[in-house]
Amino acid sequence: MNAEIILVGTELLLGDIIDTNGKYLARALASMGINLFYQTVVGDNRERLLDVIRRALTRSDILIFSGGLGPTADDLTRETVAEAMGLELKEDEETVKRLRAFFAGRNMTLNNLRQALVPEGGQVLTNDWGTAPGLYIKKDTKQVFMLPGPPRELEPMFEARVRPILEKESCRVFVSTDLNLYGIGESSAEAKLRDLMENPDPTLAPYAGSGEVRLRITSSGSSREECLEKNRLMLEKVRERVGEYIYAVDGESLEKALVERFSKKGLKVAAAESLTAGLISSRIGSIPGASEVMEEGIVTYCDRVKREALGVKKETLEKYSAVSEETAAEMAQGIRRVAGSDVGISATGYAGPTGENVGLVYVGASFKDKLIVRKLETRRTKLERNYIRALAANAALALALQITDLFGYENGEINL
Amino acid sequence: MNAEIILVGTELLLGDIIDTNGKYLARALASMGINLFYQTVVGDNRERLLDVIRRALTRSDILIFSGGLGPTADDLTRETVAEAMGLELKEDEETVKRLRAFFAGRNMTLNNLRQALVPEGGQVLTNDWGTAPGLYIKKDTKQVFMLPGPPRELEPMFEARVRPILEKESCRVFVSTDLNLYGIGESSAEAKLRDLMENPDPTLAPYAGSGEVRLRITSSGSSREECLEKNRLMLEKVRERVGEYIYAVDGESLEKALVERFSKKGLKVAAAESLTAGLISSRIGSIPGASEVMEEGIVTYCDRVKREALGVKKETLEKYSAVSEETAAEMAQGIRRVAGSDVGISATGYAGPTGENVGLVYVGASFKDKLIVRKLETRRTKLERNYIRALAANAALALALQITDLFGYENGEINL
Repeated sequence: MNAEIILVGTELLLGDIIDTNGKYLARALASMGINLFYQTVVGDNRERLLDVIRRALTRSDILIFSGGLGPTADDLTRETVAEAMGLELKEDEETVKRLRAFFAGRNMTLNNLRQALVPEGGQVLTNDWGTAPGLYIKKDTKQVFMLPGPPRELEPMFEARVRPILEKESCRVFVSTDLNLYGIGESSAEAKLRDLMENPDPTLAPYAGSGEVRLRITSSGSSREECLEKNRLMLEKVRERVGEYIYAVDGESLEKALVERFSKKGLKVAAAESLTAGLISSRIGSIPGASEVMEEGIVTYCDRVKREALGVKKETLEKYSAVSEETAAEMAQGIRRVAGSDVGISATGYAGPTGENVGLVYVGASFKDKLIVRKLETRRTKLERNYIRALAANAALALALQITDLFGYENGEINL
Repeated sequence: MNAEIILVGTELLLGDIIDTNGKYLARALASMGINLFYQTVVGDNRERLLDVIRRALTRSDILIFSGGLGPTADDLTRETVAEAMGLELKEDEETVKRLRAFFAGRNMTLNNLRQALVPEGGQVLTNDWGTAPGLYIKKDTKQVFMLPGPPRELEPMFEARVRPILEKESCRVFVSTDLNLYGIGESSAEAKLRDLMENPDPTLAPYAGSGEVRLRITSSGSSREECLEKNRLMLEKVRERVGEYIYAVDGESLEKALVERFSKKGLKVAAAESLTAGLISSRIGSIPGASEVMEEGIVTYCDRVKREALGVKKETLEKYSAVSEETAAEMAQGIRRVAGSDVGISATGYAGPTGENVGLVYVGASFKDKLIVRKLETRRTKLERNYIRALAANAALALALQITDLFGYENGEINL
């Protein structure tokens, strides 16, 4: 079965917003083993939309629309799909009721009622995350799904409404397991896993992360249990080859792993940041529950503050400079002492864009009687300032997990 | 003239990466007054790519391709465009020379030489930002541009190679002036500017930002000077209506405005951050030259640290709580004193997702004998944790510009 994504909205053609629905839907389809050959963006224009839909119906089995289901005159997806497929529109009573309940006491216009129109033979996909309902039409060999454009509605709609239909139609269930790796490059990981990556089911494939490697195991079967067992067996094989680099299974990010695991162990962390300038603390702070594992952090952008706030020795700065193994070590120890935290982490380096040694970074971690400092060599390739800062933050977060022996996925939440 | 964007790459259809080229090109075309009606993503597959190109040639005057120009067998754009347009490929000597120079001493394969093939009548668009050259073909009424996929190559290639050709072909120059506003909502801004937004030339249009309003003035004319003058006159009209909210003209972000203006005035800033947890300092640190305006920052995630590190009074925390006007004020004054900076800024609030009063935020700023605290009421609408944190950082950065009288665009760099 081949799918095609059609994103409807003039705002996308004006470059006002970056589309994320295309990526989301593409990834979801890939995880189900459904081929996606085309993705088209078209404006809120009846003729052009009609042209795109007719073309798509000739070449794809599954059409997934995003956007154009709202109440305004600009919202043309519903009417135009019905026209292209030769279907009449009729009012759906249930949806009218839902809309009346939603607008209770407020002004509901005739336009709002357009949202209750359904192409004949079509089915309403109830939207529990917004007002515009989705639509599903199955006609001959074609399946058409229309979803609202806002990502916070489209994403849960896909999971709760579209995925079950696609699975039922194909009589197959697809289950993916994502692995997050840190400390190994994508090409090295591929070299170690090449034969497993050629396996037809479950499949093992890399997908892009920022500065870390992610792998996805996907299997298909007649039940979720069957798939989970197949994924588990593949995971064991992957673990034999690159187990030491895996820090999360179905996890999301280093900061999420850190907040969850430190919280469970009752550990506290504090960061002393030079080139990252608050990025490490902010990434920890981006995770709900961060206040349980972090009480403070210090941004030390100049040498004076490294000395005064962290107790880095004047001689260390003079002899080895602010960007050195020694300074990173004293920063990590200093922030741990100052903050009274279990773990202290540090990052110092040259983010550029000007000056020598751009890309030279040291990160450090201090925990009990352990101290680890790691040098990041990102000087080979010319990296952008904020990419260097992001890599430094990744390295420091990974180090905090490693020094506490909480890095491996055995210690994390495993959904398998 | 109507344009169409064709993004080539299977990786885009697997959902591995979010495409940003589409948005970039769409915005660039919009700024030149060129209509964009379609944007298509297609994989690295000859037949499907051929189908998409043929379709595009029937309905659009300008085709802009991103990706598929590299040296591997997967890179099909060059060959397939030539095939669709019925053009032979021939080797371009100049490009061969450039490639040989680039690979000097290293192994250059036959595949690399494919990058030197040019469709007859076509023109090489020299790539000073990577190895894969771009291509330009003008045939009958059609203009085709092929650009490399990496954004750091595509963006400068568009500006330096494509834009001048499009301007020359249309005998028109288009110049845009972007205005950044803070402190006014999009709908209020539109209400005040409605009649100006209906002006045909220069046009005035809002475009989406995160938590701030951006406006773009675009005029067309026969010279850059003529356009700049037209934009200047429109800017004066906009300024009469919403001047107090404009903080930058052709600027990029609050943090960029802050770093540039503080640097020029020799001012230093330091942030005390609770809910933002380093985000404010990190955003300042993301701008080259940040070390000239920032020496330190403190993340105070718990009450104890607010007291010990910033000197917030115990009574203040007990009487008014950590999320209060009073605490924000003492945090801003405290960080200014501790850091010895000219300006101290602070942010405290509830980011959620759980607990009461999620979205209640106070930001503060202290400068000389001035102290300003602002309450952000983001409680009405349920906002996501990290959106609340981003709004808080915006507000604190804006406040730092306001308290130093560096907010208005008169003080900033004006490219007009």
